[in-house]
Amino acid sequence: MDTLFIIKIGGNIIDDEGKLSAFLRSLHEVRGFKILVHGGGKLATKLADDLGIAQQLIDGRRITDAETLRIVTMVYAGFVNKNIVAQLQSMGCNALGLSGADARIIIAHKRKHPSIDYGFVGDIDQVDHSRLAGFLLEGLTPVIAPITVDAGGQLLNTNADTIAQELAKSMSDRFDVQLIYSFEKTGVLEDAADESTLIRTINRGHYEKLKNEKKIFAGMIPKIDNAFAALNSGVKKVIIGNAEQLSGLVNHTTGTTIINE
Amino acid sequence: MDTLFIIKIGGNIIDDEGKLSAFLRSLHEVRGFKILVHGGGKLATKLADDLGIAQQLIDGRRITDAETLRIVTMVYAGFVNKNIVAQLQSMGCNALGLSGADARIIIAHKRKHPSIDYGFVGDIDQVDHSRLAGFLLEGLTPVIAPITVDAGGQLLNTNADTIAQELAKSMSDRFDVQLIYSFEKTGVLEDAADESTLIRTINRGHYEKLKNEKKIFAGMIPKIDNAFAALNSGVKKVIIGNAEQLSGLVNHTTGTTIINE
Repeated sequence: MDTLFIIKIGGNIIDDEGKLSAFLRSLHEVRGFKILVHGGGKLATKLADDLGIAQQLIDGRRITDAETLRIVTMVYAGFVNKNIVAQLQSMGCNALGLSGADARIIIAHKRKHPSIDYGFVGDIDQVDHSRLAGFLLEGLTPVIAPITVDAGGQLLNTNADTIAQELAKSMSDRFDVQLIYSFEKTGVLEDAADESTLIRTINRGHYEKLKNEKKIFAGMIPKIDNAFAALNSGVKKVIIGNAEQLSGLVNHTTGTTIINE
Repeated sequence: MDTLFIIKIGGNIIDDEGKLSAFLRSLHEVRGFKILVHGGGKLATKLADDLGIAQQLIDGRRITDAETLRIVTMVYAGFVNKNIVAQLQSMGCNALGLSGADARIIIAHKRKHPSIDYGFVGDIDQVDHSRLAGFLLEGLTPVIAPITVDAGGQLLNTNADTIAQELAKSMSDRFDVQLIYSFEKTGVLEDAADESTLIRTINRGHYEKLKNEKKIFAGMIPKIDNAFAALNSGVKKVIIGNAEQLSGLVNHTTGTTIINE
């Protein structure tokens, strides 16, 4: 099977023009099939602030009310997505910007939760892997914004890590999928304050041990849980690491590789 | 050859949720191949006002400075485009939202003008008609936002009427193209204040006569000039009329049809 890299870019890289540009150049140099999934950085929060729209937080999680949905649709699917696509085009990479609504590639439903109303937040039901494979075979590089749609045409704010994971799982029948979570950290660290404590390979046993010893940075736990879930669903490899070292992540010379055994 | 409807939606329809929704339902009912090109209505101006960004006008034309480009990218390619796509999806129409940068479908250059710097405004060089035909044959309905890109990856604000016209011309080798400009007026009127003076068919001789007699509303002149240019480049028919009567425009039972002879 052909290798497909599904690469999530997040964190501070999106907000830093120079770093984003260097990352996109590295992405363009990745040979073979690839899909980019991006978040929105701090731009959505900044736009909300500039418009005087208060952010609602419940238990530290942002609630997506109608105004916030309007903002994230503009920022993620408009500004960030089209700027990434335009930069990739200038390098000769034929990028195709997509939300989940476009070509119906990601159908979701509004999150149901017993006590918290998250607002217009989507949990993913279905990915049109055939359509995405078609775009790849036509020479296009999908660039996916973290906005999905439900069957009734309601746009929904959706976690970009989860989108990357669901894409990876659904594309695994047809491709050897390598799922790369790239952000501003070097990978999974034994000591969150010390980049030299990078763990190069982590399996489930090792992970449980580190988690019990509270040696894993809390923000990393959902990423690693998602990684194991992806591996259990046919994804070949999950790599977590620094977006500034994308070629090293692709070649497995840096970052943390998460394996099933 | 197959018929392809290229439909521009503009004016007040975009700003009116109910009218837009009814229009999209009629669009879904148009049989065969179709492409929708949309403007942004007043939402971009409103967002600029809300953010306290002053609009620069020269000779009544809006100048697209960097801040305005950011706003139109968010509003046109983000909010408006994704809301139209999501609504069409809910009706069962498999819409694909695109800017000109996506899949490199519309390449433009920054407008050169001897005395006015329009800012980030694009004039179109090239349409990838093969790619658009490919999307159509795959069952997708392209929904195009009026944002293009230059070879260096610079996004550019581009007139939606012109995009519709350039698409129509470039697709004419492969399809019998009918170009429909739909907006809030019934069509070309002899008396701009009286909708009952609708001209059902207009040719070049008739148009020149009306123009000389100042019987054509000034805002209509560029539309009609564009229409004749499109007909000269192989487009089969150009129809101008009310977006609330789209099925009548498609069936030629209402609106103004512009013909070459």
